[in-house]
Amino acid sequence: MKKNILIIPGDGIGQEVTTWGKQVLEAIAQQYGHAFSFDEAIMGHTAIEATGSPLPDETLEKAKASDAILFGAIGHAKYDNDPSAKVRPEQGLLKIRKELGLYANLRPILLFDELLDASSLKPEVLRGTDILFFRELTGDVYFGEKKRNDDNTFASDLMNYHRYEVERIARKAYEAARTRNKRLCSVDKANVLETSRLWREVVQELAKEYADVETEHMFIDNAAMQLVKNPKKFDVVLTANLFGDILTDEASQIAGSMGMLASASIGDGTGFFEPIHGSAHDIAGQNKANPLASILSAALMLDIAFGLQAEAKAVTKAVADTLKAGWRTGDIANAETPADRILGTNEMGAKVLEFLAS
Amino acid sequence: MKKNILIIPGDGIGQEVTTWGKQVLEAIAQQYGHAFSFDEAIMGHTAIEATGSPLPDETLEKAKASDAILFGAIGHAKYDNDPSAKVRPEQGLLKIRKELGLYANLRPILLFDELLDASSLKPEVLRGTDILFFRELTGDVYFGEKKRNDDNTFASDLMNYHRYEVERIARKAYEAARTRNKRLCSVDKANVLETSRLWREVVQELAKEYADVETEHMFIDNAAMQLVKNPKKFDVVLTANLFGDILTDEASQIAGSMGMLASASIGDGTGFFEPIHGSAHDIAGQNKANPLASILSAALMLDIAFGLQAEAKAVTKAVADTLKAGWRTGDIANAETPADRILGTNEMGAKVLEFLAS
Ligand SMILES: CC(C)[C@H](C(=O)O)[C@@H](O)C(=O)O
Ligand SMILES: CC(C)[C@H](C(=O)O)[C@@H](O)C(=O)O
Repeated sequence: MKKNILIIPGDGIGQEVTTWGKQVLEAIAQQYGHAFSFDEAIMGHTAIEATGSPLPDETLEKAKASDAILFGAIGHAKYDNDPSAKVRPEQGLLKIRKELGLYANLRPILLFDELLDASSLKPEVLRGTDILFFRELTGDVYFGEKKRNDDNTFASDLMNYHRYEVERIARKAYEAARTRNKRLCSVDKANVLETSRLWREVVQELAKEYADVETEHMFIDNAAMQLVKNPKKFDVVLTANLFGDILTDEASQIAGSMGMLASASIGDGTGFFEPIHGSAHDIAGQNKANPLASILSAALMLDIAFGLQAEAKAVTKAVADTLKAGWRTGDIANAETPADRILGTNEMGAKVLEFLAS
Repeated sequence: MKKNILIIPGDGIGQEVTTWGKQVLEAIAQQYGHAFSFDEAIMGHTAIEATGSPLPDETLEKAKASDAILFGAIGHAKYDNDPSAKVRPEQGLLKIRKELGLYANLRPILLFDELLDASSLKPEVLRGTDILFFRELTGDVYFGEKKRNDDNTFASDLMNYHRYEVERIARKAYEAARTRNKRLCSVDKANVLETSRLWREVVQELAKEYADVETEHMFIDNAAMQLVKNPKKFDVVLTANLFGDILTDEASQIAGSMGMLASASIGDGTGFFEPIHGSAHDIAGQNKANPLASILSAALMLDIAFGLQAEAKAVTKAVADTLKAGWRTGDIANAETPADRILGTNEMGAKVLEFLAS
């Protein structure tokens, strides 16, 4: 198989971890006889520094022309603490999501048995958890009109959804539920928000069409609670952009660490694959970041963008084998982990490559 | 002390639990020689059934005339599954919050040592946690303009804040932080939302004024994660209406159960005290609900509305003693709880009264 893959390392630890996602893709290409060619582009703070824009035209053109994109992370504390900054790294990420029509963000909460103890949740609460989030990614209050009045005494963002936006992601979630445990939980705040009431109406209509899937509706506050209380009860979770942002970060603690979670953003064209973690500038450049989320993002790319299931499984197995052998990065180590089993980014990435080769 | 207290049981289990909050107030009055007089009013589904309105004028008048309000819960599945319903129970709650100017919702996450094992979180993660949430309660996307276009293909809610709305709740949170561990974490989504950027600007300005308090800013997705990962790191958490709704429900798992958490809504006039749990129609009328959140809401009333600290402490101690003696309702029992220690709503309420008397 011949594919052009665009690598966008982005900011902070994005640089360090993405190199390992890429090396895993290279190893797979060699092992399975595929021809993956790679190009690289800039985005975020890195791109602002170089060009003034968080998403230079060249990056967007390369992205559109590629078969799949492996992305790292975005953001910088500099802008976070300056609420009045007009140009911000995140604008690059939001714009590329919109421009590529990446309306469906899939976030699987994959629990490796070896990491049951890395979580702050009790192992018996976690064991058996397997959730697939469908987060809407190109609508909601993220993209609604923003206003600030002249004397800075008022600000607003328009939360909004069009029926077709809800329907297309709901369909994707229902299709996925059919291949899994046939349960779909749609999360909204329909007791307060008009946007959520439209959301719920659309899902209720589709529920009839997908009558083989059991549909449940849950308020976001309750969902945020149930996810901690009893994560096992969820199969496919379908939700809006903002609620999905919050719930999936929360759910990262099920997997033991943000450093373990990959995501796939898909829609009209080229797919976009990225860890759910951020740029983590506090540990950037220190060889401390966990490269597994980037490596698992590469696995999602193989599976979802290229339909290469065997190759994707090989990557996931190499990650599982690395964990089984006791290797950990700092974020997934615990008090009982022997010090000589705790690796840096590069050593951990190299271990996965070793297991992939064996 | 002479006080007029309005009891609004509301819907579902609200009816069952509020009677115990009230009985505790009566016991305190007798024990400490106060003259508490009680009136009752309807709200929510109960009020819609009786009058067609979720907040009848009579209830609002009584509320404004009272010295404090003890509320139960609101909501009914009937409306949840009918997104097109024009009259909804929750409108009653939102309207009374607005009419009484209850802009600050205080939600203390009080951890009883005896319940360390009731949580899905590991005891070592929980031990020592003590968080006080300040949730803004009369602004945000809850109260912004709602729209639905004629052909039902589009819906929106305006998320918005005025500077003075942020400032007044932030001040209350800072004042509280001064009496506690002097740490304040303000939660927003300033990397995406204009509303959050205004929020952050206002808090940054106040941070200078309250320089003795350590201020941290955190994105909501990260906060939802940190709350599970390391709840001990929080002292006072300040956030907007929607984010506060989500975070405090999530945080209920720190206390072992939603059935344990009380809240105080304060602002311009009469204070409003209520459990953070909902109407839980699935267990309503079955003598299963946990009355402790209502009882602890009564304690908050004594403390915050009436300044009766000793009386408030006596109530909290009676709850702690009840738990220490091993008594549990179903929601806070675990696999090791002997069956004869698991009580119904009324038996649990009666135990607290016993300990209060002794
Ligand atoms: C960086 C930020 C804009 C982004 C989001 O909120 O979508 C991130 O948190 C994510 O989840 O991908
Ligand atoms: C019932 C609902 C409108 C309410 C809210 O969202 O504020 C509830 O969840 C709460 O937290 O008090």
